[in-house]
Amino acid sequence: MVKYNPKTWFSLIFHSYSRQVMKTLTPTLLFMIVYTTVCCFVIVDFFKLHESDFQPTIAMHSLLGIVLGLFLVFRTNTAYDRWWEGRKLWGGTVNSTRNFALKLNAYLSPENRDDRDWFAKMIPNFVFAMKESLRGGVQLNELEPVSDDFLESLQKYKHKPNRISAMLYSKVNELYKKGVLTGDQLINLDKELKDFIDFIGACERIKNTPIPYSYMMYVKKFIFIYIITLPFGFVTQSGYLTIIIVTLITFVLMSVELIAEEIEDPFGKDLNDLPTDELSGKIRDNVREILL
Amino acid sequence: MVKYNPKTWFSLIFHSYSRQVMKTLTPTLLFMIVYTTVCCFVIVDFFKLHESDFQPTIAMHSLLGIVLGLFLVFRTNTAYDRWWEGRKLWGGTVNSTRNFALKLNAYLSPENRDDRDWFAKMIPNFVFAMKESLRGGVQLNELEPVSDDFLESLQKYKHKPNRISAMLYSKVNELYKKGVLTGDQLINLDKELKDFIDFIGACERIKNTPIPYSYMMYVKKFIFIYIITLPFGFVTQSGYLTIIIVTLITFVLMSVELIAEEIEDPFGKDLNDLPTDELSGKIRDNVREILL
Amino acid sequence: MVKYNPKTWFSLIFHSYSRQVMKTLTPTLLFMIVYTTVCCFVIVDFFKLHESDFQPTIAMHSLLGIVLGLFLVFRTNTAYDRWWEGRKLWGGTVNSTRNFALKLNAYLSPENRDDRDWFAKMIPNFVFAMKESLRGGVQLNELEPVSDDFLESLQKYKHKPNRISAMLYSKVNELYKKGVLTGDQLINLDKELKDFIDFIGACERIKNTPIPYSYMMYVKKFIFIYIITLPFGFVTQSGYLTIIIVTLITFVLMSVELIAEEIEDPFGKDLNDLPTDELSGKIRDNVREILL
Amino acid sequence: MVKYNPKTWFSLIFHSYSRQVMKTLTPTLLFMIVYTTVCCFVIVDFFKLHESDFQPTIAMHSLLGIVLGLFLVFRTNTAYDRWWEGRKLWGGTVNSTRNFALKLNAYLSPENRDDRDWFAKMIPNFVFAMKESLRGGVQLNELEPVSDDFLESLQKYKHKPNRISAMLYSKVNELYKKGVLTGDQLINLDKELKDFIDFIGACERIKNTPIPYSYMMYVKKFIFIYIITLPFGFVTQSGYLTIIIVTLITFVLMSVELIAEEIEDPFGKDLNDLPTDELSGKIRDNVREILL
Amino acid sequence: MVKYNPKTWFSLIFHSYSRQVMKTLTPTLLFMIVYTTVCCFVIVDFFKLHESDFQPTIAMHSLLGIVLGLFLVFRTNTAYDRWWEGRKLWGGTVNSTRNFALKLNAYLSPENRDDRDWFAKMIPNFVFAMKESLRGGVQLNELEPVSDDFLESLQKYKHKPNRISAMLYSKVNELYKKGVLTGDQLINLDKELKDFIDFIGACERIKNTPIPYSYMMYVKKFIFIYIITLPFGFVTQSGYLTIIIVTLITFVLMSVELIAEEIEDPFGKDLNDLPTDELSGKIRDNVREILL
Repeated sequence: MVKYNPKTWFSLIFHSYSRQVMKTLTPTLLFMIVYTTVCCFVIVDFFKLHESDFQPTIAMHSLLGIVLGLFLVFRTNTAYDRWWEGRKLWGGTVNSTRNFALKLNAYLSPENRDDRDWFAKMIPNFVFAMKESLRGGVQLNELEPVSDDFLESLQKYKHKPNRISAMLYSKVNELYKKGVLTGDQLINLDKELKDFIDFIGACERIKNTPIPYSYMMYVKKFIFIYIITLPFGFVTQSGYLTIIIVTLITFVLMSVELIAEEIEDPFGKDLNDLPTDELSGKIRDNVREILL
Repeated sequence: MVKYNPKTWFSLIFHSYSRQVMKTLTPTLLFMIVYTTVCCFVIVDFFKLHESDFQPTIAMHSLLGIVLGLFLVFRTNTAYDRWWEGRKLWGGTVNSTRNFALKLNAYLSPENRDDRDWFAKMIPNFVFAMKESLRGGVQLNELEPVSDDFLESLQKYKHKPNRISAMLYSKVNELYKKGVLTGDQLINLDKELKDFIDFIGACERIKNTPIPYSYMMYVKKFIFIYIITLPFGFVTQSGYLTIIIVTLITFVLMSVELIAEEIEDPFGKDLNDLPTDELSGKIRDNVREILL
Repeated sequence: MVKYNPKTWFSLIFHSYSRQVMKTLTPTLLFMIVYTTVCCFVIVDFFKLHESDFQPTIAMHSLLGIVLGLFLVFRTNTAYDRWWEGRKLWGGTVNSTRNFALKLNAYLSPENRDDRDWFAKMIPNFVFAMKESLRGGVQLNELEPVSDDFLESLQKYKHKPNRISAMLYSKVNELYKKGVLTGDQLINLDKELKDFIDFIGACERIKNTPIPYSYMMYVKKFIFIYIITLPFGFVTQSGYLTIIIVTLITFVLMSVELIAEEIEDPFGKDLNDLPTDELSGKIRDNVREILL
Repeated sequence: MVKYNPKTWFSLIFHSYSRQVMKTLTPTLLFMIVYTTVCCFVIVDFFKLHESDFQPTIAMHSLLGIVLGLFLVFRTNTAYDRWWEGRKLWGGTVNSTRNFALKLNAYLSPENRDDRDWFAKMIPNFVFAMKESLRGGVQLNELEPVSDDFLESLQKYKHKPNRISAMLYSKVNELYKKGVLTGDQLINLDKELKDFIDFIGACERIKNTPIPYSYMMYVKKFIFIYIITLPFGFVTQSGYLTIIIVTLITFVLMSVELIAEEIEDPFGKDLNDLPTDELSGKIRDNVREILL
Repeated sequence: MVKYNPKTWFSLIFHSYSRQVMKTLTPTLLFMIVYTTVCCFVIVDFFKLHESDFQPTIAMHSLLGIVLGLFLVFRTNTAYDRWWEGRKLWGGTVNSTRNFALKLNAYLSPENRDDRDWFAKMIPNFVFAMKESLRGGVQLNELEPVSDDFLESLQKYKHKPNRISAMLYSKVNELYKKGVLTGDQLINLDKELKDFIDFIGACERIKNTPIPYSYMMYVKKFIFIYIITLPFGFVTQSGYLTIIIVTLITFVLMSVELIAEEIEDPFGKDLNDLPTDELSGKIRDNVREILL
């Protein structure tokens, strides 16, 4: 994620979008410039058509423009909501790991170095495994081994965060069975253990479920039809000025959709993605500060 | 559900919608082309009316166009919200089955093969029964029997997921009564058991409750009135170009409503429906990996 | 509630709204036809005014049209939200009664016919009392007596669902005191008992609180001003065509408000109201299947 | 709160708004009539300007009109959400007091007249104190004393509902310590005790936090600029008709803002405020019916 | 935060925005006046262009104006939601500290001065540390020491609120271990301890996560393009009146964005920021009144 100051208008206006966005935007804009120039030439200089022949098209564009605008805002809203929900889930993970560590810190005696150490490694391990499993696969070298065969045995499991969570659940229950934790404490610790799985599950939901296929097709078809017919609405009135107008409108409409595409899967490593690496590190620091 | 890459503009623009949508859309577009052509011929070539005779109609369409656009976005929002809520509920089912299995894994001793096996079969059974009961009826061959008369006895019950849930509740309580589970563990396990019923109930709510009849009538009547009067708004100004304009506007307005129809009942087997088969399989794999 | 297929465009377009809506809509439309005809006659044929005298009015209507459209969507949203919240609350009631019955089924021994029978009657009794108390008064003949003086004693209480809930709470506590239920089970059962009261309270809130008086006045005043001035905006341009235009716009704007009126109190017996009779019956069936 | 029938169009259209709204609306409308008349006179009869001199202003108004409309709906939404959240909180108070009383009724033996009486007085006392503390100060004469020095001792505390809640918490804990209530019952009762404080805190939040100062300034500045420039947009086209047009638009725009002002602090005694007096009385009746 | 009366239209219209907003707004408006004057001069007096040469540009502005309006409302909504969520979190902190103190007051005997005093200091300490840690760093002089080395030992920890929370958790657990608190009471107190960490975590999320970089760029680029091309849309029709029109539109569009910038980070000390100093003081008063 880029850290930036929302108040620096100048750089925000003149910096270009991320490479991801420009990769589609630049060719589209170039194409539209050429296409509109051709349209202008054919209509104005070749057929020499006049305003009265095409006037209604602009009525159509003004009509559809509002509907399109509403759908782009709908699109923006859903993309932003997914992004923000992803952020909330990671914020929730920060909170639940903190609470879990704080509770354990209170419940385990300061002398109990072994168990404290075990949790101080395994709670961050869960978070690091979660982070990478949302990017395609867990990087085992980010995890801290709690026993000699830990990493090896973990590799046998398809869903690594699940396995780590299973170990956390079992450890807590074992301490309860041994009398280190009381039943009331077990009930209190259960809330965070449940949270961990709920948060990773919700992140997987966001990652694996784009907006419905038909809506995606609809928005893209709509933008395409709108832009491709745009020159005919302006050309007889504005002549070659049409090129600038069409390019600006294309820029405004395409950007929204391209940004939405970039935002809606927020767990990667792109410019706008959530700072999950940073958050994971912060969680490890927090948990260690609390437990050790 | 179709897996697709949201960034492939080209195929998204030129692929056609699902068969479900095209079944209504194609004849409507064909009808509108014929109808508009007839209107154009009658008004332009037969009565030879001029712009001044019809001008206000376009004011009406521009006025109503905004209101209609707002309602189509309202429609889209509610359809999408139902779809997304359905997805959340299935995501919640994934999470709760995982948590339930993880807790049982911690609470039951590794030697307790029988109970582990029983739950490893019954938790997925609940999910498979839920999936199919949302499609009209449970397919018993998808379930794994836990006893010889399991499938037979299940057939006597109208609401099969309820029955399976009852068996889960009873099993947990039985283990509690036998002392295998403690009271504190019973309290912790109760959360997920409650979730199962809450999630299936919420899915049934979405499935059985379309948006209010009057709204559905309203939106369809509004689109009909709007489209059917559209040629009169454009014909005197644009002549035979009206055919293209009306067809495009019809395409844009009808698609929204047709896609909304397809999205709002998300538990079937259509193109845009949720991947409940896949999720159920994933749950079975997860639960087995955890418990066995 | 009407069961309907959202995909039957033809019947949805040509069927008329519910009697409730038509009762206000028909006279309004008739009045507007007469009123607009008179306006047309007076302005076009009597005073013989021309376009230039009235042109700006259409600018005003186009300006206010957007604002009005936005408010009608706001109105629709709040009405729909109330309806959908009502549906969610009844869905929650279905879930909580199921969960409550499932828990009791697990906690009470199969031989305990008396207590099972008592709950199998009293849980649905609560729901039936809730359903009718939202319609003005409880119909005692829908309830199943659990003792000889049950119905008689119930009549002494003003708020019947409260009384039934009190009996449920007391019965559960009594079983706890007798040792039939353990403390952990009491804690688990408390969630659903709390839900019952929360759900009926929320339904009463929806029923007793229409949208603020001033907003209701505002929307109706706005529609009135808008429609009543509409003929002046179109008459000089469109002549007698104005009658059709004004009638269509009136139809579109009035319908929204009238449908919203019908939707926002969803617990009655109207066309668009929630199927609470059906849901109550379904709950009784479910609870019996589980407990008996 | 006014009780009204949302279906009585006639009276809703012709009744005037609350005195609060009219106090600002009437002088504004009168001012605008005078101001617009002067503008018309100066421009039409004095300078004799023509349409072509001022035409673009209407383009500006049409442009800004949409943005203003969107902001007024944003304003309406936030005001309504605050009002509706307030209503939900009071609905929650009704539910939680009911649940609390129902639980106590189940847990306390019928012979325990003293404790039942104490709670039957103190639960409503909390609600009455809450109601008035949201209006500026508690009216002690509405409370029922539970001991001779109750009112006197209460006066020493700044935040009276907090004090009553402290007494409720202490009483419940005391009964637990004495063995009248078990630990499981203590856990169940804790939910409602927590709710009471959460609800009053949320009401205080709504009461003490208007929308951000800058937004309030923005909306009012925007309306002012829009209305004050409005005559110039219409006068050359519509002449003295402008007076009616400007007055209508002013009426429509100002009303929204004035109603929002009235709605957003819903705990007072105004026309649109929540019926907290009535709800408090209802709670007292409910609690008494249950406990005594 | 400014305390103000939303009903004082006069001062709200004529007071200027906060210095923060004016710092960007004033130069922008001045620049636009100069820039538009130059444009007017060049086009009207130098090139002597006429309406027909530039007419379509206004169509483009009217088209894009709606889309821009929709995005500004989206921007406003997200900024306001962040602000309001921040307010809710602080409201939640008020509630949870109250509940925590009320519970401790009930659970600790009145004679237990030491523990009461300890909590009466440490609960507000957490809140004061939270307030300042959201502003960059904790001001230790605002905290009340509970032991001689309290402040000194606190300085060793990076995340001070975490440390205070750890001490609260440990103290509660210690009292539970000593038998001063029972297990049921421990379960009840756990809710608020969890809340504290959840609330501070959510505030940190709001503070550290501005809206996605790409959206911020998009909105600013869009406003820039819109305003910079605006003079060309009006100049041939309105001549030097264009200066006023462009300035007004610039004022309206820029203000929204600038206010949003100011609102969306609500934990500082600006005009529109939340009154966290005041709330912290209020919490200290409340907690003391309850516990001491």
